Amino acid sequence: MNSEGPGPRGGSTTFDRLWDALAPVGRVGSGGYRRFAWTREDSVLREWFAGEAGARGLDLVTDRCGNQWAWWGNPDADGPGVVLGSHLDSVPDGGAFDGPLGVVSAFAALDDLRARGVRPARPLAVAHFADEEGARFGIACAGSRLLTGALTPDAARALTDADGVTMAEAMARAGHDPAGIGRDEETLRRIGTYVELHVEQGRGLVDLGRAVAVGSAIRPHGRWRITLPGRADHAGTTRLADREDPMLALAAVVQRIRAAAERNGAVATCGKVTVEPNAVNAIPSRVTAWLDARGADEARVMAVVSEVIAAAGEHGGTVAKESWTAATTFDGGLAARLAGLLDDAPILPTGAGHDAGILASAGIPAAMLYVRNPTGISHSPAEHADPEDCHQGAVALATVTQELIR
Amino acid sequence: MNSEGPGPRGGSTTFDRLWDALAPVGRVGSGGYRRFAWTREDSVLREWFAGEAGARGLDLVTDRCGNQWAWWGNPDADGPGVVLGSHLDSVPDGGAFDGPLGVVSAFAALDDLRARGVRPARPLAVAHFADEEGARFGIACAGSRLLTGALTPDAARALTDADGVTMAEAMARAGHDPAGIGRDEETLRRIGTYVELHVEQGRGLVDLGRAVAVGSAIRPHGRWRITLPGRADHAGTTRLADREDPMLALAAVVQRIRAAAERNGAVATCGKVTVEPNAVNAIPSRVTAWLDARGADEARVMAVVSEVIAAAGEHGGTVAKESWTAATTFDGGLAARLAGLLDDAPILPTGAGHDAGILASAGIPAAMLYVRNPTGISHSPAEHADPEDCHQGAVALATVTQELIR
Repeated sequence: MNSEGPGPRGGSTTFDRLWDALAPVGRVGSGGYRRFAWTREDSVLREWFAGEAGARGLDLVTDRCGNQWAWWGNPDADGPGVVLGSHLDSVPDGGAFDGPLGVVSAFAALDDLRARGVRPARPLAVAHFADEEGARFGIACAGSRLLTGALTPDAARALTDADGVTMAEAMARAGHDPAGIGRDEETLRRIGTYVELHVEQGRGLVDLGRAVAVGSAIRPHGRWRITLPGRADHAGTTRLADREDPMLALAAVVQRIRAAAERNGAVATCGKVTVEPNAVNAIPSRVTAWLDARGADEARVMAVVSEVIAAAGEHGGTVAKESWTAATTFDGGLAARLAGLLDDAPILPTGAGHDAGILASAGIPAAMLYVRNPTGISHSPAEHADPEDCHQGAVALATVTQELIR
Repeated sequence: MNSEGPGPRGGSTTFDRLWDALAPVGRVGSGGYRRFAWTREDSVLREWFAGEAGARGLDLVTDRCGNQWAWWGNPDADGPGVVLGSHLDSVPDGGAFDGPLGVVSAFAALDDLRARGVRPARPLAVAHFADEEGARFGIACAGSRLLTGALTPDAARALTDADGVTMAEAMARAGHDPAGIGRDEETLRRIGTYVELHVEQGRGLVDLGRAVAVGSAIRPHGRWRITLPGRADHAGTTRLADREDPMLALAAVVQRIRAAAERNGAVATCGKVTVEPNAVNAIPSRVTAWLDARGADEARVMAVVSEVIAAAGEHGGTVAKESWTAATTFDGGLAARLAGLLDDAPILPTGAGHDAGILASAGIPAAMLYVRNPTGISHSPAEHADPEDCHQGAVALATVTQELIR
């Protein structure tokens, strides 16, 4: 283990070696990670994935949308395979586990099966989905959404980051051809079943006293951009009565977001704000805020969004939907089968989106395994999972995979 | 005139030529300007100033703090001179007039005096003060504060911009030695009287139906940094009751800033906010906001600040003073004399800080002329002054200078 890095200690050697290699990539002063799509850090992570595939003699394929696949066996010749995977990118100052735990556990499970002499009857792959967090271009699960066609190529290519760089430009600079992105039947045909292991982002397992759960569903969720206009003016000379100050509008909207979430039994967050020109001595000309809203059902989420639209409108503001993911229910038979293989593991829903949800929505049998998170904290440098639980998760992944590849 | 640029049209040819040359420097898409200290744009402005000095046969001096002086006559041999000047930098997306109008008017006034054959009995200079807006490093009037010792060299060198670049590094990269900054007796001795012409940042002259006013005082003003801590967590999976969300604290603080300003008859603004990590799907770990507060007297300002400290404290936040400028009264005799020379121009106070105020606080006789601003808007691309008023301002500056250099 890298003694400086967060993460599991002791137990599975192959797991720990994989984990240690990832620990320094994109780590920042906060102790968290900044691993954004199509950056230098992203390239390092891709090289790491390619290296691990090569070291195992797996066939490395980068699909047209930029997702990486490491195949043991030939899914084109021998029929759709079982795919284990997750993502390697992060939110700004995100934790070490969200994403990488699933990819590392996938390689560790494959090693475990090989060490036990298992000969798969179906092809098996480890997958690395591109741009899951959407931290740079604003659309979560961009790699799997492009693959399934849930995000159109033209819309994706035109997305811009904070510096005005388009996704197309960023891909091209990273050596990936943006002309080829879009729904990819050839790649989709290879995926018979997808299983994604992920650190839990909540305290469901803590409350139940279990280390591993199976996913039942992803609650509906979406992102909206709130634009609050104002009039730039001098902070020292403009009378209060003459001001059109959008920072006051922001204050009202932020409070309405929380109140609406409470009233409707949903969760809603304003986690991102940009202020223009953002000068101490100037009244802002514009404040832009983002709403993340999720709930047990679509009606609750839409009730929150309606209230926020009303609040923004009271201040001359507008609200635009950036993304929406309807409720996703994972294959119930598959989830029950996996839970049965795992000592009747609990079956839990989540409020977090995942590539597994995008694939499930596209009709691919998909399942998730969650590993206990003692604090429930995620999207934070403080995100954590105990080493024993991580190793137990990798073993659970190997256990269910051994059955799925029979 | 550059038909694309904002600014005066018609009238004084020398004024218009000077104005046109500055119009494109640092202009951005908003129609406003981004001219920050020790940047490429700043270098272009310095070269422009040096070129105008050279074209007039004036002696160019860059002082140890980075301010530029163009002397007609020798203040070391012939005693302290009369200095006309202002600044050339801007706030983000600032207007064309705030600063440049004073420097352009100073050159135009000097040309006017020469054209009329005036032979000064005292040396005369045009000055360009560095880093007046403090947009990059957070301290307004940094050039004049360093010159007078109101800002210490060590404190200045350690200031950082948004990218973590120190002022010392920025100066060095721009070719200016940061080791030399600090109170500069030699330069200060040369300034007998300082007159700064500036666009009005309010509607005092509009209400009075006059084009030019003389400054009486600068109201006390300061900047404070408000740090609101939170705990980063996943926006989709963290229960509302479990959150420590500093965006809610920001909302409360912004509202208290406005309420406190109204209650105390002051002006107070939150124009700058930074959110960490600023991700749509993460509860922020920290929000930092800045307070700009000003008032007719110190007691009003401090009453606002006390309320804001209390509001931040209710959310576990802290408030740190970044700068404070006590009330500054310009030399009353000088102001009355200038007003008398200008057809009994009105004498007005302002809430905006200026280098003239820093020099006045250091005991240098200083005065200001304000040029009418039809909307009162400043620190905005919409900042404006009518061409006739600008030309009248330059003529007024020449008129008072002719008397001061007798």
